[in-house]
Amino acid sequence: MKKILLLGAGKSSSYLMRYLQKEGEKNQWILRIGDKFLEHARKVVGNAPNVEIFDFDLADSQQTEEEVKAAELVISLLPAHLHIEVAKAAVRFKKNMVTASYISDNMAALDESAKSAGICILNEIGLDPGIDHLSAQKIIDKLKAEGAEITGFLSFCGGLVHPDFCRENPWKYKFTWNPRNVILAGQGTAKYLENAKIKYTPYQRLFKTKTTLPFSGFPYGFEGYPNRDSLKYRKAYGLENVQTMMRGTIRAEGFMRAWQILVDLGLTDDSFICENTKGQTYRDWTASFVPDSLAGTLEERIAALTGLRTEDSAMKTFLWTGLLSDDLISLENATPAQILQNLLEKKFFLEEKDKDLVLMQHQFFFTKNQKNYRIISSLVVTGEDQIYTAMAKTVGLPLAVAVKMILTGKLTQKGVILPLAKEIYEPILAELETFDIQFKDTEEEI
Amino acid sequence: MKKILLLGAGKSSSYLMRYLQKEGEKNQWILRIGDKFLEHARKVVGNAPNVEIFDFDLADSQQTEEEVKAAELVISLLPAHLHIEVAKAAVRFKKNMVTASYISDNMAALDESAKSAGICILNEIGLDPGIDHLSAQKIIDKLKAEGAEITGFLSFCGGLVHPDFCRENPWKYKFTWNPRNVILAGQGTAKYLENAKIKYTPYQRLFKTKTTLPFSGFPYGFEGYPNRDSLKYRKAYGLENVQTMMRGTIRAEGFMRAWQILVDLGLTDDSFICENTKGQTYRDWTASFVPDSLAGTLEERIAALTGLRTEDSAMKTFLWTGLLSDDLISLENATPAQILQNLLEKKFFLEEKDKDLVLMQHQFFFTKNQKNYRIISSLVVTGEDQIYTAMAKTVGLPLAVAVKMILTGKLTQKGVILPLAKEIYEPILAELETFDIQFKDTEEEI
Repeated sequence: MKKILLLGAGKSSSYLMRYLQKEGEKNQWILRIGDKFLEHARKVVGNAPNVEIFDFDLADSQQTEEEVKAAELVISLLPAHLHIEVAKAAVRFKKNMVTASYISDNMAALDESAKSAGICILNEIGLDPGIDHLSAQKIIDKLKAEGAEITGFLSFCGGLVHPDFCRENPWKYKFTWNPRNVILAGQGTAKYLENAKIKYTPYQRLFKTKTTLPFSGFPYGFEGYPNRDSLKYRKAYGLENVQTMMRGTIRAEGFMRAWQILVDLGLTDDSFICENTKGQTYRDWTASFVPDSLAGTLEERIAALTGLRTEDSAMKTFLWTGLLSDDLISLENATPAQILQNLLEKKFFLEEKDKDLVLMQHQFFFTKNQKNYRIISSLVVTGEDQIYTAMAKTVGLPLAVAVKMILTGKLTQKGVILPLAKEIYEPILAELETFDIQFKDTEEEI
Repeated sequence: MKKILLLGAGKSSSYLMRYLQKEGEKNQWILRIGDKFLEHARKVVGNAPNVEIFDFDLADSQQTEEEVKAAELVISLLPAHLHIEVAKAAVRFKKNMVTASYISDNMAALDESAKSAGICILNEIGLDPGIDHLSAQKIIDKLKAEGAEITGFLSFCGGLVHPDFCRENPWKYKFTWNPRNVILAGQGTAKYLENAKIKYTPYQRLFKTKTTLPFSGFPYGFEGYPNRDSLKYRKAYGLENVQTMMRGTIRAEGFMRAWQILVDLGLTDDSFICENTKGQTYRDWTASFVPDSLAGTLEERIAALTGLRTEDSAMKTFLWTGLLSDDLISLENATPAQILQNLLEKKFFLEEKDKDLVLMQHQFFFTKNQKNYRIISSLVVTGEDQIYTAMAKTVGLPLAVAVKMILTGKLTQKGVILPLAKEIYEPILAELETFDIQFKDTEEEI
């Protein structure tokens, strides 16, 4: 019996656990799941005979080593900075490893040792990074094989809420992923390629850079803003000659203009502590970010500060948060970002009956036979419920299929790798389609 | 013969060395000066019989210990993060110590050990921090003794160039201090008190917060922006009841509006590396911070981005830097802040014949006998030449006088201290007046 070790069994692991448990029944695999909180794993696969669930302590490196040693393959869904300890044990005991996280510098440095150990450490095989790599690389390879010259590439992804479950919410957004990351998203300077030139956009202007992303069948539109470094995969994707390249995050129409108000005010800052906030009203706290020198009501002063009219829909969306209400702040000694997160966790709360929504869209601009074309390739996945979310599905299933391929000898690359080879993306994308994770492509001459 | 150990003999040490050398002749003191670069010390006091100049290696902790052990008192003008090693040696060998730097948390933690060792570690006794403490505390104590209630306190300081030496320069600014600190100044969020409420101003709006500072006798005006934490000394100064408190930096009129353009573009960012900049024109590089989506020439697009008209004087001041010129960038793999600094070091270069200028201004708002008053207390110091600068004078002389007071038994406080006691500020301010470092005060009913 081969033992698959899964470290970390949080929200995004439900589909992964269910898939590996079922495949395990056919292939004589045991799924051994370690976490500090075991309730979620128990609910999803707790009754299966080929599943073992155990209390796992991140801080106990001896436990990590013993578990890795006893396993055939290890999956780490731990917080990203903890992968490296697991990876070192994987190299030491010559066990394959899979993660859904970005390859850190530390992880990349293990490439040679992993090759010497004859193992594969496959990373970035979740949703984003993950499905974006698989699906983009498939079309890039196909276009190149047809003799097309790719001139532009856009790739956007977003974890959102299905429109049926945010009718009253003008942001059209709920937290389906780490709220802290959402609050801090984009801090720093974004870098991308536009008209063959590198462009830098500092955080204070990021939410003003709007890329419209057409998805059909929704009651409202979507738009995106660029991620920190859009050029990271330019070489890995084989896109050295593109003139436009941007990777980014999808939000519903209107979100970015309203979020820009929070940025303009300074409410997403995580670098200093506000004092005496406990028991202060959100209104008074927000007012502390607005100069007294402006004239008018607080609402009018905020509109003036952000260059909007008070009737602007972005102002209305901003006001909906309650940041100008007389409700009381419950945090003390917190950063603005933490106070904002605490408030938005109530406003952007995904309720029991809500379904989440994952969107991804690539746009490829290319030239073939002296004509210019665009392919728009879009993915829409809706969650089933609070356990089987679209996020858990799209993060977990690519990872799960990759694990099956490694254990059945169908994925033979060694070292610290990305899922960019045809032998990897083709079978995974094919199997994802059987789970309704399927891109719809349209091609047009432009 | 008592030995005074001076570690660090850079630009700001000339007056300090000259003063201690001369006082040493009267008091039988030897001034022992250690630095990696000895030219400056040799030029200023190299021929004096009571001066020893030696090669000092920051990294050699054994050398530090031996030198401290052999001295009577140690002055550290080293970079601020290096004070702590010297301070530990000072405690160990029970030697008094003086610095012109802010008290770090590490330094503050030595308070008890310093008291047990019976020594004084006097900090923040340069210009700012330094003369600002002395002069503000003097007036605060005087007003309180008169029964006045202080309701507001503003305190600003700036290291600038004398108007006679920047006629062609629309910024009215040259580097007289660490250029890197000037480029990065204000990053983070400023915190101050306005109308009895705490106000936060994020960096992207900092240079829009203009406080006008009246100095007479200049061909142009001056203004200021708040420092990171203006409330740091609220308690130490005894100003718990003020309704307005701001500490900040002085610039010539117009500087802040033009600097805001650099901030809006993102050119002061020090958090990421620009690629392939060597040999690129400044114009092309600056263009990479401006969206192509705006219409018009690059000049027009920058004006639109920053909300200015192209004829605005701030645009003209911005253009004077050469950021839109076809000159070539010489740096490779540098941050925007480093590229900007490299350019401005040429434009803001203090030439041999130039004289620098130090300005300081406090404003005290207070109530006495049911009437409201304001005192404006201003300091203007002009440099003599490139060695005897206003900066070196105002940083070095308070420190030098404090050293004399310690060695002659007139400063007896123990522990890690600030110069806020009357026994410290009164004699130092009195002696500074003999060097023409003298505040002019005006009082008016308001």
